[in-house]
Amino acid sequence: MTTSTSFLGLGAMGSALAATTLDAGRRVTVWNRNSDRTRDLGARGAIVADTAAKAIADSEVIVVCLFDHRSVHTVLDPVATDLSGRTVINLTTTTPEEARELAAWADAHGVTYLDGAIMAVPEMIGGPASAIFYSGTEDAYAAHRDLLDRWGTSTWFGADAGLASLYDLAMLTGMYTMFAGFLHGAAMVGTAGISATEFAARQAPFLAAMSEQLAGLAAVVDAEDYAGEGQQSLQFTDTALSALRRASTDQGVADDVLAPVHDLVRRQIAAGFGTHGTARMFEGLRSAR
Amino acid sequence: MTTSTSFLGLGAMGSALAATTLDAGRRVTVWNRNSDRTRDLGARGAIVADTAAKAIADSEVIVVCLFDHRSVHTVLDPVATDLSGRTVINLTTTTPEEARELAAWADAHGVTYLDGAIMAVPEMIGGPASAIFYSGTEDAYAAHRDLLDRWGTSTWFGADAGLASLYDLAMLTGMYTMFAGFLHGAAMVGTAGISATEFAARQAPFLAAMSEQLAGLAAVVDAEDYAGEGQQSLQFTDTALSALRRASTDQGVADDVLAPVHDLVRRQIAAGFGTHGTARMFEGLRSAR
Ligand SMILES: NC(=O)c1ccc[n+]([C@@H]2O[C@H](COP(=O)([O-])OP(=O)(O)OC[C@H]3O[C@@H](n4cnc5c(N)ncnc54)[C@H](OP(=O)(O)O)[C@@H]3O)[C@@H](O)[C@H]2O)c1
Ligand SMILES: NC(=O)c1ccc[n+]([C@@H]2O[C@H](COP(=O)([O-])OP(=O)(O)OC[C@H]3O[C@@H](n4cnc5c(N)ncnc54)[C@H](OP(=O)(O)O)[C@@H]3O)[C@@H](O)[C@H]2O)c1
Repeated sequence: MTTSTSFLGLGAMGSALAATTLDAGRRVTVWNRNSDRTRDLGARGAIVADTAAKAIADSEVIVVCLFDHRSVHTVLDPVATDLSGRTVINLTTTTPEEARELAAWADAHGVTYLDGAIMAVPEMIGGPASAIFYSGTEDAYAAHRDLLDRWGTSTWFGADAGLASLYDLAMLTGMYTMFAGFLHGAAMVGTAGISATEFAARQAPFLAAMSEQLAGLAAVVDAEDYAGEGQQSLQFTDTALSALRRASTDQGVADDVLAPVHDLVRRQIAAGFGTHGTARMFEGLRSAR
Repeated sequence: MTTSTSFLGLGAMGSALAATTLDAGRRVTVWNRNSDRTRDLGARGAIVADTAAKAIADSEVIVVCLFDHRSVHTVLDPVATDLSGRTVINLTTTTPEEARELAAWADAHGVTYLDGAIMAVPEMIGGPASAIFYSGTEDAYAAHRDLLDRWGTSTWFGADAGLASLYDLAMLTGMYTMFAGFLHGAAMVGTAGISATEFAARQAPFLAAMSEQLAGLAAVVDAEDYAGEGQQSLQFTDTALSALRRASTDQGVADDVLAPVHDLVRRQIAAGFGTHGTARMFEGLRSAR
């Protein structure tokens, strides 16, 4: 075994991880199903393996970045024996349950497992805004911190391998809803001939500023202090969302994205909490269990 | 008529506007339905009027900041004659249609009308992050820029009085969906005993960073370049949102907020655009007309 680090999966993200590792002056071995994708890294000095087994043979640490949970099994199941005694750092996006399943699978095959969730796009890898969450084997996290920290700010959440993924998916919920809300807004101003680009130039800094309100919502949720002073009431938010939806439909824009947000507000009002803070919507989300 | 500026409505926002105007060394007259709310400003030197008509008599410029469109009519209809020849700057949140209706009402009563939409919370008024959008009578906007700029960065969008409101509501869509997405995420990590406060400390900077992606989505939308290079595909987003919803329901968290976002993605895939960029969701929003 050499002191290489092996990468299985050279999609946009796997390539960025491998390239950053190469740039750090480390030895890197790469494998990808479609071998075309190994070319650039090979030209930059990576060792190109033509099978996953050969890539695994090269290194003690195997970084996996594939499409989804299923493709991880497709790639790793046939090489389970080769992985025995090695460490798998899996940066593929999975659900918490899927990460736990992979951790159990690894354990059954004598593989040390660290699950990771990447809070960045490929271009950010190695830069100051990149963050990666980890959970699973703490010793593996500690032993490979130097490698992990090349890619971004590393945080370990706990031994339960599902935690990084849970946190990751929770973070992405805010992102996707923000993107969808932005596209809805762009459709609204679009009816007055305003371009999405012009709108984005105002919307992006506004949302960045408004993200500073999240800490206040969180403090209310943690304290269950929905009746406390100084909060935007559910009634007020109901009026605002009604105006928003009316304005959308007046302009012929679908209000799909807003409807469930408004429903969460109205359910709390119907339950008698109209004067409480808007953060009480939280209760409608967590009470599903 | 003195050179005072009159404020009708001293809720959280009207009070902030009046206070900032006072702080700028201007003469200020205030009226509020519930007179208790005039006390603080009166103590700080504002002239307190006990009727809206008396407040109007004091000034050429009447700043209106009430609860909603209906309350604006409740307050202004009885004093329409008093307002004749004066300028109303209405900062109450309304829909575009409501703003246009008020502009027509003002016109019929010989009142100059400027509609405003405030992109800030009361604590931000007068500070660097406060922005207010205007539309309606351009001369009124130009004549009172010095006053308007005390409250925040002013922008005039056009003579159609509905434009400021349209833009405002479009901006708020992103905010409310972001807040709802954040609360969903907090409910997810809450199932692992992580506090909303801890989550907000990571989510806020992440969303601020991700807001930088909006310009890219906008460029695609404006060019209808959904098949262009380097975009996150609808198929990829479908996988991510499926994982997110599965993880939510696995943990007993309601997926209300995500369901319509996912539907927008799946409708585009069903229409044959799975390999196109995720910004194509936009087509499902604007095609409602
Ligand atoms: N891109 C981002 O912004 C981003 C951000 C955070 C997390 N992630 C996560 O990182 C992971 C990879 O994302 P990406 O952007 O690199 O995706 P991508 O560009 O689509 O690459 C997918 C990779 O998975 C491989 N693959 C898919 N199915 C396979 C199978 N059945 N057998 C073997 N290999 C298979 C592909 O190989 P071929 O080249 O042979 O098709 C390719 O290497 C995903 O889980 C994603 O959620 C991505
Ligand atoms: N607060 C914010 O963060 C914010 C941000 C942007 C825009 N805005 C907009 O600013 C406007 C005012 O908001 P706010 O936060 O100041 O609300 P608020 O604190 O609830 O104040 C509402 C004001 O409206 C008055 N009012 C309500 N119904 C009335 C009626 N029928 N007749 C006479 N007066 C009536 C209230 O008078 P009483 O005191 O007598 O009840 C009070 O002065 C709203 O349109 C809001 O959407 C607010």
